[in-house]
Amino acid sequence: MPPSPTRGTERATHAAEPDLGLERLVFFSDAVIAIAITLLVIELHVPEIAPGRAVEELPGRLLELAPQMRSFVISFLVIGLQWFAHHRMFRAIVRYDRRLLWINLLFLLGVAFLPFPTALLGRYGDTQIAVLFYALSVIAVTLMKLWLWWYATSAHRLVERSLSKHAIRRELWRNVDTLIVFPVSIAISFVSPSLAIYSWLLLVPVSWAARRLSASTGWPK
Amino acid sequence: MPPSPTRGTERATHAAEPDLGLERLVFFSDAVIAIAITLLVIELHVPEIAPGRAVEELPGRLLELAPQMRSFVISFLVIGLQWFAHHRMFRAIVRYDRRLLWINLLFLLGVAFLPFPTALLGRYGDTQIAVLFYALSVIAVTLMKLWLWWYATSAHRLVERSLSKHAIRRELWRNVDTLIVFPVSIAISFVSPSLAIYSWLLLVPVSWAARRLSASTGWPK
Amino acid sequence: MPPSPTRGTERATHAAEPDLGLERLVFFSDAVIAIAITLLVIELHVPEIAPGRAVEELPGRLLELAPQMRSFVISFLVIGLQWFAHHRMFRAIVRYDRRLLWINLLFLLGVAFLPFPTALLGRYGDTQIAVLFYALSVIAVTLMKLWLWWYATSAHRLVERSLSKHAIRRELWRNVDTLIVFPVSIAISFVSPSLAIYSWLLLVPVSWAARRLSASTGWPK
Amino acid sequence: MPPSPTRGTERATHAAEPDLGLERLVFFSDAVIAIAITLLVIELHVPEIAPGRAVEELPGRLLELAPQMRSFVISFLVIGLQWFAHHRMFRAIVRYDRRLLWINLLFLLGVAFLPFPTALLGRYGDTQIAVLFYALSVIAVTLMKLWLWWYATSAHRLVERSLSKHAIRRELWRNVDTLIVFPVSIAISFVSPSLAIYSWLLLVPVSWAARRLSASTGWPK
Repeated sequence: MPPSPTRGTERATHAAEPDLGLERLVFFSDAVIAIAITLLVIELHVPEIAPGRAVEELPGRLLELAPQMRSFVISFLVIGLQWFAHHRMFRAIVRYDRRLLWINLLFLLGVAFLPFPTALLGRYGDTQIAVLFYALSVIAVTLMKLWLWWYATSAHRLVERSLSKHAIRRELWRNVDTLIVFPVSIAISFVSPSLAIYSWLLLVPVSWAARRLSASTGWPK
Repeated sequence: MPPSPTRGTERATHAAEPDLGLERLVFFSDAVIAIAITLLVIELHVPEIAPGRAVEELPGRLLELAPQMRSFVISFLVIGLQWFAHHRMFRAIVRYDRRLLWINLLFLLGVAFLPFPTALLGRYGDTQIAVLFYALSVIAVTLMKLWLWWYATSAHRLVERSLSKHAIRRELWRNVDTLIVFPVSIAISFVSPSLAIYSWLLLVPVSWAARRLSASTGWPK
Repeated sequence: MPPSPTRGTERATHAAEPDLGLERLVFFSDAVIAIAITLLVIELHVPEIAPGRAVEELPGRLLELAPQMRSFVISFLVIGLQWFAHHRMFRAIVRYDRRLLWINLLFLLGVAFLPFPTALLGRYGDTQIAVLFYALSVIAVTLMKLWLWWYATSAHRLVERSLSKHAIRRELWRNVDTLIVFPVSIAISFVSPSLAIYSWLLLVPVSWAARRLSASTGWPK
Repeated sequence: MPPSPTRGTERATHAAEPDLGLERLVFFSDAVIAIAITLLVIELHVPEIAPGRAVEELPGRLLELAPQMRSFVISFLVIGLQWFAHHRMFRAIVRYDRRLLWINLLFLLGVAFLPFPTALLGRYGDTQIAVLFYALSVIAVTLMKLWLWWYATSAHRLVERSLSKHAIRRELWRNVDTLIVFPVSIAISFVSPSLAIYSWLLLVPVSWAARRLSASTGWPK
């Protein structure tokens, strides 16, 4: 079935407001991502301490929350990165069709699901299964995002004609960082789950390198 | 009482900003739907396992969460479909009045309620009552949505004059899919609640057929 | 201190974008109200039933949730009404100053607090204290809203010059309904807390009458 | 690395829509702040009372919630103040680059984290550690905010050329209030945690004085 950006009811008002529909799509996505990123804090539970013992026990109990706080920070940054990419992609996307709505919804499903693997990681970060579950969730979200970009840009379906192939490929490559770091971390998790979590810090140099490389190399037009 | 799109205070600024009010209505609706869809994840609780037994027990406990995850995915898609329809309808709606505000609020009440039947379904998906409760909730939301569309379009009350009767009826028919599949699933639930849940997959072919039929048939103008 | 709509940093970009700041204020308020209204569902907890007894016990346990569902619906409509009024008021408000930001923040504080008295009412609706607490919360929110309107309109501080005194007073009167019904319900709660809750249904005729009266009477210009 | 507001994909649509990207950034921030401020109410738990004893015990149990309600109000106002400042700053910011996105994300991380120290303060407000934790969190958020402003304005990187140095410095000073009051409260917490909480009321006169001073003094242009 060929893409059909403006059919049926949608066509009716298309002439008058060419991108109100797109704006709502972007808005709805922003809202879902913002809610998912802010809900992460709900998993940080205040420790329950018997009355009169709070002064002695609270500092220790807060330290025990360190893994949960680490998960909170990791997921906040991971979801933030998803938003950055979605934000960049939709600066270039100027139309939408029903399929883009669906792919975007599946991407949002992945993002909205992330608080669960985050909580799992905070609670059982020393087990391989929690690390695996988290890494696979992030990889799934990234794949959705790349699918979205691929769908929107192939044959310039939903982007400006003037968008260069160079720019299209560069955006693809900029999102490859998680597809390198998280599979590597899965391999590492067989040795040590904790080490696997720390290996996610590789995102910093890898995403920097991906951005540099994609920007500087002479990609074929 | 006849519809009165712009009365009183509302009329005061109407000339200057013809649709800021409508934009806020759409925005508020988007926000409520986005929150409801993202809150679904809250019902996925991380299993509590005694210290030292996580490695052995966590995989099994995660598998036990499969019904909850199924409910999460179902409701994410169901609410997503509601948003798609709301999004399409408000591309055609260009005015609003107090009654539309009320009908829309009742629609949002239904959407904001859905996380509860979702949680019920996740916890007691093997009982008929949970399936019934869920199916009736979705049917109620759909009826609100159809009421909204009927109210907005009858006599072209709140849509462009130029919107064809064809387009108006087509939108009606496109929303009929849930009104077919969910009542059927209620019948099935008397035989098997689990089968009833899987029958919701019929939404995929039924909504595809509804869209095809409504688009291709020569509806009277 | 006189009102100072555009001072300091705010003045810097005022010429270029006269109402981006106002738009953000409206947007932020919409988001807070939308979140508060959607969080209400969190208080509907799925009943915990021992395995194997769900089929027999679930229907009864769902019926026991009736008071919570009643609170959910009441508060959804109460917060919805607040949004309607905020929406109407900000169609007329065209400027803002620091004080309006503060009054609006206090109004939002009241709205964001409402899920707590709602939960209290759902759990202890048969006690006078829960009814009192709820009624007083709604009255406080209404007073904030009226303060906001009074502040914005006195001497046409933040509204169009062309907004008639008639329209200004009418908006005041339209918000008086809760100030009649909830104090009356407090009196009734001394006789019967349940009756007091049902007395809130008086909102329907009272708000209808308030709207009619304010629209039809020949208010002095 | 020099700031690069519009590179790569972002440049593609820049000519057509110069600030849609900025609008989304502001929108996303508003949404995160709105959600954080509204989630605060989740920490107000309805007391659990045995059936039949609610009438006698509920008033006392509600009074016991006073510390939680105090935390709710404090944090609502603290987050509200953050929003006010963010709102003022982004009235002057007219461009963005990747670094601003990152600094803003870290600011949002701080804001989204605040519900946790708020809950801690509500539960253990009589311990110094809870007061310290809260004060340090607010100080961290303020520092992020000042970093954001410093980054955006130094060499007029992301603001209008016409924005005076006076206005830039004034905004800096207006945000210094929390950097005075919260460190002082940390000192006070060594004497009395409760007194430290009440010392936050100094925010009212200090922020008033900061605004006055910054507005009236003849700052060097």
